[in-house]
Amino acid sequence: MATRKKQLPTVLAIDIGGTKVAAGFVDSRGRILAETRAPMTARRSAQEGLRSVFQAVDSLRKQFPGAKPRCIGVGVAGWVDPARGVLIGATNIPCWKNFPLAEALRKRYGITALLSNDANAAALAEAVWGVGKGHSSFFHVTLGTGVGTGIILNGKVLTGWSGAAGEGGHVTINFQGPLCDCGKRGCIEAYSSGTGIARRARERLKEEPRRSSRMRELAGGKTEQVTSKIVSEAARKGDSLAQEILEEAADHLGIWMGTVVDMIEPEMFVIGGGMGHLMMKYRGRMRRQLKKWAITPQRMRIPIVEARFGAGSELAGAAALCFASLEARRR
Amino acid sequence: MATRKKQLPTVLAIDIGGTKVAAGFVDSRGRILAETRAPMTARRSAQEGLRSVFQAVDSLRKQFPGAKPRCIGVGVAGWVDPARGVLIGATNIPCWKNFPLAEALRKRYGITALLSNDANAAALAEAVWGVGKGHSSFFHVTLGTGVGTGIILNGKVLTGWSGAAGEGGHVTINFQGPLCDCGKRGCIEAYSSGTGIARRARERLKEEPRRSSRMRELAGGKTEQVTSKIVSEAARKGDSLAQEILEEAADHLGIWMGTVVDMIEPEMFVIGGGMGHLMMKYRGRMRRQLKKWAITPQRMRIPIVEARFGAGSELAGAAALCFASLEARRR
Repeated sequence: MATRKKQLPTVLAIDIGGTKVAAGFVDSRGRILAETRAPMTARRSAQEGLRSVFQAVDSLRKQFPGAKPRCIGVGVAGWVDPARGVLIGATNIPCWKNFPLAEALRKRYGITALLSNDANAAALAEAVWGVGKGHSSFFHVTLGTGVGTGIILNGKVLTGWSGAAGEGGHVTINFQGPLCDCGKRGCIEAYSSGTGIARRARERLKEEPRRSSRMRELAGGKTEQVTSKIVSEAARKGDSLAQEILEEAADHLGIWMGTVVDMIEPEMFVIGGGMGHLMMKYRGRMRRQLKKWAITPQRMRIPIVEARFGAGSELAGAAALCFASLEARRR
Repeated sequence: MATRKKQLPTVLAIDIGGTKVAAGFVDSRGRILAETRAPMTARRSAQEGLRSVFQAVDSLRKQFPGAKPRCIGVGVAGWVDPARGVLIGATNIPCWKNFPLAEALRKRYGITALLSNDANAAALAEAVWGVGKGHSSFFHVTLGTGVGTGIILNGKVLTGWSGAAGEGGHVTINFQGPLCDCGKRGCIEAYSSGTGIARRARERLKEEPRRSSRMRELAGGKTEQVTSKIVSEAARKGDSLAQEILEEAADHLGIWMGTVVDMIEPEMFVIGGGMGHLMMKYRGRMRRQLKKWAITPQRMRIPIVEARFGAGSELAGAAALCFASLEARRR
């Protein structure tokens, strides 16, 4: 048994964000065998950025010297050309522009490296090991600070012409709506991400100063310090204003999902990310809006399911890149 | 030479709408060799609907008795299950619900029949013979009374889970926007279709009663009778209000195209349909809005081109179904 376990192939998974790098060894069942986190130097030179990544990986390898990964999978919150393994650009990692990240990793560690947008990678993890297994198409939503999306079609990630497809979080549902961090208006990210929910809560608290809400207490009386975490906690404790705000966020998600159905008609929606589990409590509202905002006669039959890899999808996603590629080569 | 021409395969193409049926013989270069039109009985029994189609085809065959089509291609303005050749439903053809149209045609004429949504078929015609030839992905827009869309990915029409993908005309860009015929609000069809443009012209003429406009003359002084044709004609003659309305329609198209780019990032936009040629005069405005409303760094490199098959794409589209299928089998 121990011998068989040793033979399970592992891969080196790396997730790079604006402030931290995570690295881990992941086996062919999607289980994380070892994991480290290190700070990311994202705002200086390209070389310093790379050094942060190497440090995280080297520290992981020291902890687990016996691991012989076959492949490196990297997820980054940014625009990626997956075919060339190049990071085109990332708002929170300004040190890299058109940077050959896969090649740099391959040179240092001597094994193939595959690069993807993190939201696309999270979708792939669900396709390989999660609730999307056995489904040829689905639309994956990572609900967190932002709204990330990944589209699986015929078992593969839809990457688009230059690799930028699947930025569904920046699809506008109201071009006269609230300003998004991306500069556009009315993106679903501006309405229903953690950032959007917190903004809306602060607005509502200001609009209704006499309405009592636990959110005020939880923020120490400082309305401007209300976060999505505070909204979630207050809603869980039965605060009606917090619940209304989450209901509204779910309604907007449903409108947007209707739009997705009319455009590409996925077989299923998969909801993940740090806010995914919470928002799944409002699935009924999403469904009612989806029914109103999609026109296909089959719209009521499209399931909305919770992701297997919720908040912790990053390393699984990066690893899925490798296993999906190994799988494709075996065929 | 005559002998070679005779050997070019032809197919029988049928386009079915709410009021008419068109049937034609189309050769492997996308040329229509013969064509007939007949009225469509769309609001009585399924059998009467079928009889209209048979009449159109039989009349065509009488005119061109030597034709030996290999395959029948059918485009319908409605929801289609292309895999089973079943018309699920069509707003303007209520006589058919879950109707096995391909099978009915195969039985009568003894050759394979393929069924598609008409907007998807129009996109395929561009892929097989038009400006999309040699491109692996593009987004095709049929601008006419409505806004139809067809998505080509990896050289194939994206049909979606039940065949309903590509209803991009009903993607909302403002869920608080004008009411669409489909019952939703703010669909691009409500803003930038012929119907939407005419509605907006009537609104603007009422809002600005003192502003002189050729549209009033062209409508015989009856504002409520202004059509998209009148708006187009007035704009061509330099009418500033008509031009503003078309500019606004182009701006809305650009916002919507930005959304399409963020979602699926096509290689190119192809603009067809009866209003396509006119709206292409406003390509610069579409592009400026697309730049603002898409976030991918590559957004400025996505071409917006005019379709080869503009207003007359219906029979070419239906025929393309057959030739694309013959092509796929040959590989």
